[in-house]
Amino acid sequence: MEIRVKSDIEIAQGSKMLPIVDVANRLGLEEDDLELFGKYKAKLSTDALAKLKTKESGKIILVTAISPTPAGEGKSTVTVGLGDAFNRIGKKAMIAIREPSLGPTMGIKGGAAGGGYAQVLPMEDINLHFTGDLHAITTANNALAAFIDNHLQQGNELNIDPRRIVWKRAVDLNDRALRKVVVGLGGPLQGMPREDGFDITVASEIMAVLCLATDIKDLKSRLARIAVAYNYNKEPVTVGDLGVSGALTLLLKDAVKPNLVQTIEHTPALVHGGPFANIAHGCNSVIATLTASKLADYVVTEAGFGADLGAEKFLHIKSRIAGIKPEAVVIVATIRALKMHGGVAKQDLAEENIPALTLGFANLQKHIETIKGFGLPVVVAVNKFITDTDLEIQTLLEWCKRENVSAALTEVWEKGGEGGIELAETLLSVISKEKNNFHPLYDMADPIDTKIRTIVQKVYGGKDVEFSPKAKKQMQDFEKNGWSYLAVCMAKTQYSLSDDPSKLGRPSDFTVTVREFKPSIGAGFIVALTGEVMTMPGLPKKPSALNMDVDENGNAVGLF
Amino acid sequence: MEIRVKSDIEIAQGSKMLPIVDVANRLGLEEDDLELFGKYKAKLSTDALAKLKTKESGKIILVTAISPTPAGEGKSTVTVGLGDAFNRIGKKAMIAIREPSLGPTMGIKGGAAGGGYAQVLPMEDINLHFTGDLHAITTANNALAAFIDNHLQQGNELNIDPRRIVWKRAVDLNDRALRKVVVGLGGPLQGMPREDGFDITVASEIMAVLCLATDIKDLKSRLARIAVAYNYNKEPVTVGDLGVSGALTLLLKDAVKPNLVQTIEHTPALVHGGPFANIAHGCNSVIATLTASKLADYVVTEAGFGADLGAEKFLHIKSRIAGIKPEAVVIVATIRALKMHGGVAKQDLAEENIPALTLGFANLQKHIETIKGFGLPVVVAVNKFITDTDLEIQTLLEWCKRENVSAALTEVWEKGGEGGIELAETLLSVISKEKNNFHPLYDMADPIDTKIRTIVQKVYGGKDVEFSPKAKKQMQDFEKNGWSYLAVCMAKTQYSLSDDPSKLGRPSDFTVTVREFKPSIGAGFIVALTGEVMTMPGLPKKPSALNMDVDENGNAVGLF
Repeated sequence: MEIRVKSDIEIAQGSKMLPIVDVANRLGLEEDDLELFGKYKAKLSTDALAKLKTKESGKIILVTAISPTPAGEGKSTVTVGLGDAFNRIGKKAMIAIREPSLGPTMGIKGGAAGGGYAQVLPMEDINLHFTGDLHAITTANNALAAFIDNHLQQGNELNIDPRRIVWKRAVDLNDRALRKVVVGLGGPLQGMPREDGFDITVASEIMAVLCLATDIKDLKSRLARIAVAYNYNKEPVTVGDLGVSGALTLLLKDAVKPNLVQTIEHTPALVHGGPFANIAHGCNSVIATLTASKLADYVVTEAGFGADLGAEKFLHIKSRIAGIKPEAVVIVATIRALKMHGGVAKQDLAEENIPALTLGFANLQKHIETIKGFGLPVVVAVNKFITDTDLEIQTLLEWCKRENVSAALTEVWEKGGEGGIELAETLLSVISKEKNNFHPLYDMADPIDTKIRTIVQKVYGGKDVEFSPKAKKQMQDFEKNGWSYLAVCMAKTQYSLSDDPSKLGRPSDFTVTVREFKPSIGAGFIVALTGEVMTMPGLPKKPSALNMDVDENGNAVGLF
Repeated sequence: MEIRVKSDIEIAQGSKMLPIVDVANRLGLEEDDLELFGKYKAKLSTDALAKLKTKESGKIILVTAISPTPAGEGKSTVTVGLGDAFNRIGKKAMIAIREPSLGPTMGIKGGAAGGGYAQVLPMEDINLHFTGDLHAITTANNALAAFIDNHLQQGNELNIDPRRIVWKRAVDLNDRALRKVVVGLGGPLQGMPREDGFDITVASEIMAVLCLATDIKDLKSRLARIAVAYNYNKEPVTVGDLGVSGALTLLLKDAVKPNLVQTIEHTPALVHGGPFANIAHGCNSVIATLTASKLADYVVTEAGFGADLGAEKFLHIKSRIAGIKPEAVVIVATIRALKMHGGVAKQDLAEENIPALTLGFANLQKHIETIKGFGLPVVVAVNKFITDTDLEIQTLLEWCKRENVSAALTEVWEKGGEGGIELAETLLSVISKEKNNFHPLYDMADPIDTKIRTIVQKVYGGKDVEFSPKAKKQMQDFEKNGWSYLAVCMAKTQYSLSDDPSKLGRPSDFTVTVREFKPSIGAGFIVALTGEVMTMPGLPKKPSALNMDVDENGNAVGLF
């Protein structure tokens, strides 16, 4: 959305990376602690990860945003630039972010490794196969599906009801034709015919499990707990029952190790794991965030979508498992997006519009209240775009002052770390001065519906929650299965605080409807589905793949 | 099949590897020529590959076998051991073999990187995700499928007939339930409903294309030529027509670089590409074989199944494209397998049986005649098993003498390179003494049916070939499409020289029936299907995955 002199890939390819061994050395890691993937990428070895566990932890800063709009907020860009800024002011900092999915890369222009001069490199690799983590997850996901269908074919000892297999297959692509399929056609030698479907890999429970596991042993237990189907008595059948948790762990033994790369300014970054922020919790891996906190004094990490989704899940799900207490939360806002929340159409965003901007503040305000509700210090990052007028920025900063919330202008897209120094310094000041009284909003012992009501009222600002007859029935089953103690993972539109994507700004007095639940027992949460949730995107009429190419030296062309 | 004191994985994990940089240094490569994948695997960089192209070529030795039986021949083991043996006698040697598929690894016990003391390491990595080549191919295959279905969905400008889409999806797994599927169900927003199916990745034409490409530019042209569907006028629609050959090449830009590893004895090996030997040509990549020939004086390489399949395709398809003239061909035979060809049941193979053995020689004899028919020197490698009696071995060696073909006993499984020295020295002697008059058996200008008749008569020893009405109709279409100049790739059972898997030994007077053709225009051949060809295997009742696990240090357990 920014007016760009150079494209992201031009800036990336024009940057000189340090050998990743040198980046690691600065963190106190030796070459032996790394498993190199070429010169500029590495995984941390199992030994290195074990060795780091006993070290003291640095401070973790969570970056989230207002409710996203097509105008763009630049949360990843701010995350990367903030890490660079900390390093510029002499703090030992690291970045821990998600790794992108290939599906959107081939479909819609736009990388997922920051932008402008606040990027993680090598961006081509990160946006293509990277170190193979997503491929390992796809393979484990589909191996499990093959084991299930083979179990049906070979006598069905576990008495699995083919109509109640909930495990879907996956590809790391946007492929709408695979959403609903029938498999096992062709007669008795070709398997049992049944309805099935494919999700994009980042929506696989294996991705969520990998991102929440604290080590390989925990990964194996979580995989074993995944409920893949129900038998004819409607009892859950798990990966453990099928006897393949060891094999799936084997397929994931390298994918579970975090990936070390660097920013344009050579700030070390762990880019690892990337679960959906609707059907899953939308945060990079627990292992990466904790490892970064052992290697650096300041870790900047992010969570998907707005504070109502990613941050809520970071604070209720990831923090609880990882024992993380964030020092502060950054809420990224842009003038453009606030104007959209105030009612401006996309094509009119370049024009100054103070009344609309002021109306849009309501969305930001709710997210600030939410984070404060968790007992956490907040800083608003105003991510500057070239079309923003001085008056607009002034208006926003003054509003923040009146609301008694710290704010800082960031210009990291254009200026890299230099453009984030004000934000970094504001954060240091807030962390040293403001009280941190972090606490979750719900208790794990609360029933599922209570947990959801708490989120709807305290995080979304809604009035109440309604459950469909199906959802009510499912909650009864969960009680029988002993699943009520699990966390809740809300699958809600990211565009609105409510479950209606058209309600921008700060809707109030709304009721959220939970249509259905999807238990993710390995991940440790029950997904509550509100509205339609897309777990397999489609390609646009002209996919970005049409512009992609390789030159004769094997370099990427046309990738963003 | 061998009586094993230690398992392959125990021997592999008990072996000390050299850093791959050291292995590369011995070949005259610098660290900068490598893209490291951990300490023991590397890809050769684009620059290194380009630099090597102008160097002189070493000698290439092809390892093939008699018609395979469940008794096991150990072709890969002999290939690896022969490379080690050459190094032991002071020759600069390299090995160039295929990389294994994950599907069989998870399904049936048995690695694909040699065995015993003649293995390529690290075997766990090579048999799991390795350097991600197969995942890149799976992704490119399925991205192409998504682009086709998206084209249908977005207006179908190319007028593709959804009933005539021949491009299938792929997973690198054994998954019978995916053989025949219906995709695009769920209404107009979820794509166009149509019949579809999945092949195992090694059966994808993209695997064949990657293995036959001479460089990245050739890869892109070959991808562009792949015919994925036919329009309503029955004209072929290609990847080039869809405009995605650049994107697919981008997805394959690293997979096309060969992978350097080492044997237990530190002989350098390029393990790269692994197309099926029925639906495709069954040889490792042209780039790997040619690169190895620039780095070493002797390159030992293999081709899938028996000499009637893999070797025929190596000599007619791969050699032609790569400009390779092999110095000699090794035919691997075992006493056990020859006894099976002579009519002995699997459970009786441990007993001495000279009459059956003698009967079985007929199979070996035909393969020797075939290779001599190509004008190439032959050596029979007798791969010793512990159950072989001295008399049996003596009988085979004497038979070879009478047939005027060189033979050598190999014990590489048990003794590594030491056990292959006799074979290596026999080869050197044969290469220096015997005339090499290598020539293909058919001419590229021959019509498709003539090419097939030549193979059936000169390679299989059959009487004639019959074409189904469908196949006849297809040949007419190929003429219209300008495809008659292409090579032929026979898809035939590997168990018999004929198209009937029950006919062991040396059947004669048989007719081969070509049921159907499958054009692989990117690969540059027309596949002729005889009998049923399995392009998606299934899992057995107790898949080997049930024994797999990872210990707490992240090491593979139960993998073979």
